[in-house]
Amino acid sequence: MTISRFIPPQRTLMGPGPSDVSPRVLQALSQPTIGHLDPLFVGMMDEVKALLQYAFQTENPFTIAVSAPGSAGMEACFVNLIEAGDTVIVCRNGVFGDRMRENVERCGATAVMVDDEWGKPVDPAKVEQALRDNPQASVLAFVHAETSTGALSDAKALSALAKEHDCLTIVDAVTSLGGVPLLVDEWQLDAVYSGSQKCLSCVPGLSPVTFSPRAVEKMQKREQKVQSWFLDQSLVLGYWSGEGKRSYHHTAPVNSLYALHESLLMLQQEGLENAWQRHHDMHELLKSELEALGIAFLVEAPYRLPQLNAVAIPDGVDDASVRSRLLNEYNLEIGAGLGALAGKAWRIGLMGHTARKENIALCAKALKDVLG
Amino acid sequence: MTISRFIPPQRTLMGPGPSDVSPRVLQALSQPTIGHLDPLFVGMMDEVKALLQYAFQTENPFTIAVSAPGSAGMEACFVNLIEAGDTVIVCRNGVFGDRMRENVERCGATAVMVDDEWGKPVDPAKVEQALRDNPQASVLAFVHAETSTGALSDAKALSALAKEHDCLTIVDAVTSLGGVPLLVDEWQLDAVYSGSQKCLSCVPGLSPVTFSPRAVEKMQKREQKVQSWFLDQSLVLGYWSGEGKRSYHHTAPVNSLYALHESLLMLQQEGLENAWQRHHDMHELLKSELEALGIAFLVEAPYRLPQLNAVAIPDGVDDASVRSRLLNEYNLEIGAGLGALAGKAWRIGLMGHTARKENIALCAKALKDVLG
Repeated sequence: MTISRFIPPQRTLMGPGPSDVSPRVLQALSQPTIGHLDPLFVGMMDEVKALLQYAFQTENPFTIAVSAPGSAGMEACFVNLIEAGDTVIVCRNGVFGDRMRENVERCGATAVMVDDEWGKPVDPAKVEQALRDNPQASVLAFVHAETSTGALSDAKALSALAKEHDCLTIVDAVTSLGGVPLLVDEWQLDAVYSGSQKCLSCVPGLSPVTFSPRAVEKMQKREQKVQSWFLDQSLVLGYWSGEGKRSYHHTAPVNSLYALHESLLMLQQEGLENAWQRHHDMHELLKSELEALGIAFLVEAPYRLPQLNAVAIPDGVDDASVRSRLLNEYNLEIGAGLGALAGKAWRIGLMGHTARKENIALCAKALKDVLG
Repeated sequence: MTISRFIPPQRTLMGPGPSDVSPRVLQALSQPTIGHLDPLFVGMMDEVKALLQYAFQTENPFTIAVSAPGSAGMEACFVNLIEAGDTVIVCRNGVFGDRMRENVERCGATAVMVDDEWGKPVDPAKVEQALRDNPQASVLAFVHAETSTGALSDAKALSALAKEHDCLTIVDAVTSLGGVPLLVDEWQLDAVYSGSQKCLSCVPGLSPVTFSPRAVEKMQKREQKVQSWFLDQSLVLGYWSGEGKRSYHHTAPVNSLYALHESLLMLQQEGLENAWQRHHDMHELLKSELEALGIAFLVEAPYRLPQLNAVAIPDGVDDASVRSRLLNEYNLEIGAGLGALAGKAWRIGLMGHTARKENIALCAKALKDVLG
């Protein structure tokens, strides 16, 4: 195999992530690498923490970016808060709820599943029943914004139920952070993880996480060591902590953190409320364009995610060939269906830097042309 | 806190990693992000596999980059090859051997430690004795090039002993890959992990790994599920496999993989033997400069790593203030001692793109000026 330099095309990324990365972020990414213990880098990490606290709307001191993708952020929450023998109530209304179950079981704990239909939000009444039926449960885990279906669940209501039953919450905010309201402190969420490559529009590979003081207390009272050394947050905190000397844990992904710093700064400069509004407005515009093409949404309006639009593939249309033509002829990526929705749905993302009028115009016209 | 754009200085990185990243690699890093399931990206991943096979000198089909730093690559090897109740012989002659023990124990397995002095290589006679004394052991784990001390162990001899006693090997090649000979197939190593930010001079955040067919067979025969979902290589392989359709596992760190592709391409263009020779030659040059300053090496010549030079801090010299002056006045980073060598040693890295004459000139002159 003769291999030469890889030069990617310029795509418009309207799938479920990664989203379009702004030139500002790419430029930050390519700054010269400095040492991960360099005082200037350590100072930048403190700023990343502060910017993440703003994005998560939290004052949790333990707010960092895990040095790996969102799946590792998910695992960091589970392995640190759960011990073998625990019972965890897991809500499943798409692919990522089932991945939560995998995590629970690999911790040697029992997952009590609360199932809802794909495309529907988690039903608080079912959760309340599960909490009543399982008083031994210590954690309630749910997905705020299901990337596989585009459905938004009521994190505030689910968290209130968990609190009533003395459970901590683990919340998947991979697709919600920066795209729709997520108020970690006001809603009293305990362990929340996200991804860099969705509504933050940073490059993929980092997972912002935040842990409430209640979650930290639970970690400190563990009887067993965390099964993952890499994700053991008691060790990671020694590295991210601003107090005194940093202790070496692993080599941080220096350049990716430059990029995250810049993308969070862009969010702060725009303002979180303005970013939510922009996602909402762009969703409305996309919706009117898609409806004009006769394309129907899979998720009902009240719990539809503006940043991830799951739509039914029209009858008689070949899924793969449409996506392939959009990619090859228009440099436009839209997402395939995942799991139960494979072949039945497209997922059109409007996340972060992607949520711009020109992208919606391109998508509407290209779809119109390709669908004939 | 008012936060503005972070603009790092241009440092010369002569610590234990990250090493200097070439402008070619930084340029590749900042190419536009494309989707992680884009056919063009999938094709690039196949090239990364082929280039990694060259770097590792292996034909192992299971040769990939873990989407996280070297510590996660280490953990990927342990959690996939070890099950609760197993016995693992772990060689410890520095910080990273002890981290291997942590990994073994967190898998619920027993670590039989073979200790050697810091700065010495692993003693094959002690390993042979441990293999004889522990016929139930299934894995021998050792560090090829100890980043904490700069000592090189005889991976070929240790692997031969393991084979005689029907053990698989897990080998830490974080600092050796690309800097000194590492012949995975010829030496019959089974699970080998490295880091992107050492002699490959890519940005930190990825961990090249390779698994022999024997290691893959052992994974396939596991009785228990791998305790980590993120690092379960049976799932990851479905994503990296070139055969048929890719299955989604996690979102790959797209831009970091562009950078790894470019850094591996540079290694291929230079030629692996030439890269080893360059590290050797630059080490000889650094040695003569340091000896002229009266600075002594901690590791004896026969097993001294050319790419990581651990030297004794001269009597009466203040460790922190020298490193701080080098950094602030000369933009030059050298490494502190780690663990037992903290405050006693400096670690001067000559890894990858850092191993150039101009950097040695800078280091020698700056040290001379600062030490007075």
